[in-house]
Amino acid sequence: MIYFDHSATTPADKKVLKAMEPYWRENFGNPSSIHAFGQRAVLGVDRARVQAAEFFGCEREEIFFTSGATEANNLALRGIIKVLKNEIAHPHIITSKIEHDAIIEPCRDLESEGIEVTYLPVDKRGMVNPEDVKNAIKENTVLVSVMYVNSEVGIREPIREIGKIVEKINESRQNEWQRTGAAKKLPKPGAIYFHTDATQAVNFFDCHVKKLHVDLLSMSGHKIYGPKGVGLIYIKKGVKISPIQLGGHHERNIRSGTLNVTGIVGLGEALSLITEADKEKNNKKIAALRDRLVEGVMENIPDVVLNTDRENSTPAHAHLTLRGAEGESVLISLDFEGIAVSTGSACASNSLKSSEVLEAMGVSEEDSHYSIRFTLGKDNTAAEIDKVIKILPGIVEKLRKMNPVYGK
Amino acid sequence: MIYFDHSATTPADKKVLKAMEPYWRENFGNPSSIHAFGQRAVLGVDRARVQAAEFFGCEREEIFFTSGATEANNLALRGIIKVLKNEIAHPHIITSKIEHDAIIEPCRDLESEGIEVTYLPVDKRGMVNPEDVKNAIKENTVLVSVMYVNSEVGIREPIREIGKIVEKINESRQNEWQRTGAAKKLPKPGAIYFHTDATQAVNFFDCHVKKLHVDLLSMSGHKIYGPKGVGLIYIKKGVKISPIQLGGHHERNIRSGTLNVTGIVGLGEALSLITEADKEKNNKKIAALRDRLVEGVMENIPDVVLNTDRENSTPAHAHLTLRGAEGESVLISLDFEGIAVSTGSACASNSLKSSEVLEAMGVSEEDSHYSIRFTLGKDNTAAEIDKVIKILPGIVEKLRKMNPVYGK
Repeated sequence: MIYFDHSATTPADKKVLKAMEPYWRENFGNPSSIHAFGQRAVLGVDRARVQAAEFFGCEREEIFFTSGATEANNLALRGIIKVLKNEIAHPHIITSKIEHDAIIEPCRDLESEGIEVTYLPVDKRGMVNPEDVKNAIKENTVLVSVMYVNSEVGIREPIREIGKIVEKINESRQNEWQRTGAAKKLPKPGAIYFHTDATQAVNFFDCHVKKLHVDLLSMSGHKIYGPKGVGLIYIKKGVKISPIQLGGHHERNIRSGTLNVTGIVGLGEALSLITEADKEKNNKKIAALRDRLVEGVMENIPDVVLNTDRENSTPAHAHLTLRGAEGESVLISLDFEGIAVSTGSACASNSLKSSEVLEAMGVSEEDSHYSIRFTLGKDNTAAEIDKVIKILPGIVEKLRKMNPVYGK
Repeated sequence: MIYFDHSATTPADKKVLKAMEPYWRENFGNPSSIHAFGQRAVLGVDRARVQAAEFFGCEREEIFFTSGATEANNLALRGIIKVLKNEIAHPHIITSKIEHDAIIEPCRDLESEGIEVTYLPVDKRGMVNPEDVKNAIKENTVLVSVMYVNSEVGIREPIREIGKIVEKINESRQNEWQRTGAAKKLPKPGAIYFHTDATQAVNFFDCHVKKLHVDLLSMSGHKIYGPKGVGLIYIKKGVKISPIQLGGHHERNIRSGTLNVTGIVGLGEALSLITEADKEKNNKKIAALRDRLVEGVMENIPDVVLNTDRENSTPAHAHLTLRGAEGESVLISLDFEGIAVSTGSACASNSLKSSEVLEAMGVSEEDSHYSIRFTLGKDNTAAEIDKVIKILPGIVEKLRKMNPVYGK
């Protein structure tokens, strides 16, 4: 069995499982409990919080554990609007057309409640232009949310540049108010917050929040060899946000519900395993495998398009259009050989709709249906890649022959 | 180390951990993925869904996995209001004064948005009077939410009786409409939904949803020797509810976010371990230990009040007022001896506020502060109970001597 779908999820690292082990039956207490069982659980959570704070370069108090990135994204969007809709008449959110559904859908939901949302376009690589963010910002803009890495094609968005733009606009608003508004006793202008969904970036890129100039950042455990069902959100001190899930005042009132101690311990451990040295080593190794795959496939199969811009993407992604070979059929044929790939994002794979990400990149609907995604992981090998290169041409050839329109 | 705080959380059962084991690194796929890794994860989730459906006597399609009971409760309240506020001008919710914060707080939040909420009183045992529910129902009532078992004192609420009342009112509304409204083409009256937070009941009482006459039921894994960070909500087919956490359309669009496969597998296994036979056996065993504790304490310590109505409570609860001995001091003294108890609900234990549950039961603020809670589990022993009976009198005596007002 060969696994090339690491963007969908990853196996838990043995070290992660080992770190979690004592929290199932020994230190199993509820961290809200005062007694020793509870306090030993608190120690586990605290350790994870330190690991996360170190990873993201923030304060421990700025880390809030959630049930995953989806919850974190929902909290970022709805939690900010919940506070600010009482302060601003028509709050405006800026996001991109290629966000994960966990951003797009809450945005659409907020639109149905009268919130204004701008969905920025991307270029053919899938990249948002920071200038577009700048131009989209209006008087009533309260939040910009752009993902760090797109899960489908792997493109890395210019988060730092966007962050700096938002920061500069906030500064100039404040200065303008100091210059003219303060004397007139006008209300101090609120900040525009910048959120990024970094779920797909954590394995590969620098996620230091100060370097990224972000105010909020979401991520998930199961994409980084940690457990499913746990994630976190970094929320910069001072950000006005209201909880969505209420009851019990956990996580300093931002996210209620008994803390998922084992999950949190696993998430912390998984983050701590992504050291600078290992990241560099893994990135190099994975990139070499990805390039071997891409080149091998393109050399052996005609009429293939690589949709992943390798220079600006994760080292793990290879999103390929194998013209004439329907993506799902390729997936199933490879699966039959024990090789797991994807047709795009796992979250949307049960639906047959064409990828909105590829559409935004200008990929035709036809090419979109002829696409598959490989996402490599740290345990993949050259032999596994070579097996794909050996098998895939036959599969594509067969499917092309069966295709009533391709090449006809 | 002796653990008497099973209402706060329980250790994971070894069988639960064993069931989860293959889903960490072997069947680790994302259940949204089409390939074998994904489909093997789907099998695990499906099995858990069957286990849950069997336990609650419902259809598989009526089980929705969440991150815990807190999320399930929030979803029940806000999800129903989200749909119905567009259909009914001023929706009205009926709940009780002794609900968990995961019900009380979303209710207060909804109140701030203009939703009407009635908080029913309880008698001195902590029990809601079903007649009070009946009398509180109004034209605009859309939801009744009463917990099955209160975590602090262990009282079992008359869910079946309340369920039947709600059902009867729904029927009579429909009949009335058939008789007079249908001809006049009046809109068909909506049903009043009945939700119960069964988190503290699952270990002990029949949770068959049809016998309980409930439309929605919440529960959590970690209270039943399963993992933390996972729970579920039963939602009867036809209930109008809108998702709160969006993105990816998981769980038939009711709860988005990558499924916590290992957690779900563990939750299903934990439910399957609560067989009728084991439940009866454990209930008997735990009740005998609890009675041994209560009687031993009351025989050996004067001026003690038992706040748990043993006839109508779980077999596990013993909520005691040890007059003159401050609850937190007793807790810490016992903790020093390796014995874990609680002063009430773990979720509120970090705050010093007096218990709203005890207040609603008519317990004085003073007595409330002199209270501790024992909640027994299936692995407790008579020797553990005897240790408490031996140690507690000395602790109470010492604290009473230090108390500047008690007995003075």
